Amino acid sequence: MSSKELHGIPINSNGLEVLIGEHLTNDLWNEKETNQIRGYYESLSNRILHEKFLRDLIDILLDKAVFEGTSRKEKVVEWVEPKKLPFLIDLTLPMNGVSHEELLSLARNIIKYSVKTGHPHFVNQLFSSVDPYGLVGQWLTDALNPSVYTYEVSPVFSLMENEVLKEMREIIGWENGRGDGIFCPGGSLANGYAINLARHYKFPEFKEIGLSQTPRLVIFTSEDAHYSMKKLAAFLGIGASNVCCVKVDERGKMCIQDLELQIEEALRQKAVPLMISATAGTTVLGAFDPLEDISAICTKYNIWFHVDAAWGGGVLMSRKYRFLLNGIELADSITWNPHKLLAAPQQCSTLLIQHEGLLESAHASKASYLFQPDKFYDTSYDSGDKHIQCGRRADVLKFWFMWKAKGTNGFEKHVDRVFELSRYFTDYIRQRKGWKLILEPECTNVCFWYTPPLKRHLKDEELSNLLHKIAPIIKERMVRKGSMLITYQSLHNLPNFFRLVLQNSGLTEADMRFFVNEIESLSSDL
Amino acid sequence: MSSKELHGIPINSNGLEVLIGEHLTNDLWNEKETNQIRGYYESLSNRILHEKFLRDLIDILLDKAVFEGTSRKEKVVEWVEPKKLPFLIDLTLPMNGVSHEELLSLARNIIKYSVKTGHPHFVNQLFSSVDPYGLVGQWLTDALNPSVYTYEVSPVFSLMENEVLKEMREIIGWENGRGDGIFCPGGSLANGYAINLARHYKFPEFKEIGLSQTPRLVIFTSEDAHYSMKKLAAFLGIGASNVCCVKVDERGKMCIQDLELQIEEALRQKAVPLMISATAGTTVLGAFDPLEDISAICTKYNIWFHVDAAWGGGVLMSRKYRFLLNGIELADSITWNPHKLLAAPQQCSTLLIQHEGLLESAHASKASYLFQPDKFYDTSYDSGDKHIQCGRRADVLKFWFMWKAKGTNGFEKHVDRVFELSRYFTDYIRQRKGWKLILEPECTNVCFWYTPPLKRHLKDEELSNLLHKIAPIIKERMVRKGSMLITYQSLHNLPNFFRLVLQNSGLTEADMRFFVNEIESLSSDL
Repeated sequence: MSSKELHGIPINSNGLEVLIGEHLTNDLWNEKETNQIRGYYESLSNRILHEKFLRDLIDILLDKAVFEGTSRKEKVVEWVEPKKLPFLIDLTLPMNGVSHEELLSLARNIIKYSVKTGHPHFVNQLFSSVDPYGLVGQWLTDALNPSVYTYEVSPVFSLMENEVLKEMREIIGWENGRGDGIFCPGGSLANGYAINLARHYKFPEFKEIGLSQTPRLVIFTSEDAHYSMKKLAAFLGIGASNVCCVKVDERGKMCIQDLELQIEEALRQKAVPLMISATAGTTVLGAFDPLEDISAICTKYNIWFHVDAAWGGGVLMSRKYRFLLNGIELADSITWNPHKLLAAPQQCSTLLIQHEGLLESAHASKASYLFQPDKFYDTSYDSGDKHIQCGRRADVLKFWFMWKAKGTNGFEKHVDRVFELSRYFTDYIRQRKGWKLILEPECTNVCFWYTPPLKRHLKDEELSNLLHKIAPIIKERMVRKGSMLITYQSLHNLPNFFRLVLQNSGLTEADMRFFVNEIESLSSDL
Repeated sequence: MSSKELHGIPINSNGLEVLIGEHLTNDLWNEKETNQIRGYYESLSNRILHEKFLRDLIDILLDKAVFEGTSRKEKVVEWVEPKKLPFLIDLTLPMNGVSHEELLSLARNIIKYSVKTGHPHFVNQLFSSVDPYGLVGQWLTDALNPSVYTYEVSPVFSLMENEVLKEMREIIGWENGRGDGIFCPGGSLANGYAINLARHYKFPEFKEIGLSQTPRLVIFTSEDAHYSMKKLAAFLGIGASNVCCVKVDERGKMCIQDLELQIEEALRQKAVPLMISATAGTTVLGAFDPLEDISAICTKYNIWFHVDAAWGGGVLMSRKYRFLLNGIELADSITWNPHKLLAAPQQCSTLLIQHEGLLESAHASKASYLFQPDKFYDTSYDSGDKHIQCGRRADVLKFWFMWKAKGTNGFEKHVDRVFELSRYFTDYIRQRKGWKLILEPECTNVCFWYTPPLKRHLKDEELSNLLHKIAPIIKERMVRKGSMLITYQSLHNLPNFFRLVLQNSGLTEADMRFFVNEIESLSSDL
């Protein structure tokens, strides 16, 4: 057996153990098997080979991805054009396997050309950083390779999910953690679940008969809400145009008057107002909708109250800032992604609901080949039928492990620190020449324009046009340099502006000044 | 700063590097920051602490989860009742973090009480084994913590997805890998995507207007198809009862005559036949529906042709067995989960489609804060708007890494080997006393009854009742002993039977005999 052929054999092909295993020593071996014995001796050395390979690769992971990847001395990204990258990493899939040496070299290049989302200067998205406890939680999950649908197959993960979801509900303010919840593959799908639950709560028969020949259902959310509401409304057969976009005020918060006007208009059109989805921490501005006022409207019109707190949910951990989410405890359902503000690894999203039994009622299909009715243990621990997924990764352990390591108090410090940093940044740019805040931040999003020295004489439309045009240029320059990653976007009638967004409590005030200096330096000639 | 407080600090909080970093050495430090310098020195030792912790935990992972967890000398499961498990692992979430020592001890217990899905004697589900290349692919993904929506943030993963999906389409038989595809969080959602694509292809306006006041849409799939078809049809607003369950023949294959009858009936009722979902490898029996015949029906009635090959798709890698999927190249869409038959780690699911541009058309919402229209690079590499997820884990690297390590030929050997083992098992029990095959296996599912010696005189209904009753008892005994895990279920009017299912090419003929001996031994007194 050549060294290359060995690569195809999984770890547990250490057949030698079978040969010496107690239960089989009495068996007689036929000719074919006798031949295999030779192979098994080879697979013993195969195990040694595998272990060496695993350990070599782990060294690369730790050195290059985890430590260098998060070092301020290193670049955030080694930019390569899409068309050139295949010449630097051979992505093609071979007929025959490559050597361990080649695999290690490929791993090094994958790390080299990947964006370091754990780097302190990656402030581009609503996630960042590498938490060591979250990371080993992921690694442990991978090594155990579970699928969380039955207690039989995932005992520890099943109970751990219950524990974490219950604690999150307690933090929301639901007495004794009452209610229910699930882990979802992302906040978009969590919002989709919420729509389906709202629909099932009001019209349980639709699960069987579908929506044809039914009244038009309408969802209300703010014009600054996440795009998933329209995407999932379309996917669920409700239709993207039946998501009414309610106006926001100058702080990016849902306007209650416009909300009520739109509900009245829907009722006049004989549509059924199904759900109001408030946002706690909008994607761009980080605004918190007025949850108590929205809840009152929901009660008045008998509408399901959902809060998309995918981004802002983590603020509930902070006694200082959780007032921003006052009223969240009045929600029927809540999306909360610990992989965002609480810096758990991708992906860790939850949907939490007040109504017990509704998840099963809305989603269960009772497949008897997975959820056998005659199992010997208490099958109330089998959570699979609450989900629309069948096989499902365990996203709980990484977050649970972080929670054990830091404690609730650790999360509070983390949240308070990223808020503190965002306020430091805000104050730092407030009076600085050429900088202009879009609005006072509520969450850790800080939105701003920067006008380079050569263009500070411009005004009104000329200035707007300039700002809109230079944002992508500055972004291109920072990407090519690899010094930092921050995103820009336009919103409403505002020209392109930058959005700093913080979830990494390992950043410092010096990093905040670095961002400012770097943007100034990258645009000094513009 | 106490040792406990250090735990809350992410890896990249190594502020010392900032202090000595070139770009900031000219800054003056204010009082607050001077105080922080002391903290930074402490966080240098924090990094050392973190690295030691990471390496200690990796040692536990490798020794306990990876190697012991896949050793035949060890148990598949250390069974504990749901109510007792919390006394063996403290799952509660503390206010203050626990020590590294406690975390390591928790990790050991999580491994101890988790089911070893990589163990050779775990044949309970449509996934198993721990592939070393898949595992390090996962670990590498975790360390880089990407979200695959834009090339900007995930350059390597974006191109890698394209490469793998294209190669899979070539293997299906679509010339030059034409078409499109996405990675999905599981086969259920891949099937849901297929329903939405079929709907959008025929009725593009439904994305905006929804399904109210539209004709009833109907989906056809076999009564042995995966339960996700009904679940997702309900979720998508089509309604579970609008999934027509077509009869299967004695081999578990969709009956074409009944399919056509049901289509005609739907047409008589003025419903719109939207999609036929054939199954390539049913969950229980492992049957392959007659794809060519079903394709002809789709053509005749102008119906979308979907193939759920979540389980059987891997067979395409084998020149010897791929005839089982003849006609799959005629499909509009295909679900294929490499985490099943090809033994990639959880979760690796794909949807592959013939129609270019349809994924964007069906799902895009063009959120300008993520998919900026004025980016400086070719944004055709930004795949995010093809999905209903926003943030999305990279499920590609583990599979790509396996493919590089083994080559296409390695996957073929793997598939041929698990088929060979299933045939060995089949032949082994065929003539053995007390054993009865449900049917000749097509895939690696082998379904059988075993009647213990004391009950072999029973016949007909008495025998049926006995078999139905003893399956859960035998299962309970094997779980409590921890010797193996195999599933049982009833189907149609058949009493409970066992299903052996193989995806682990590291198993041996001796393992097959072990399964037989173990089931006989566990039921000898029944």
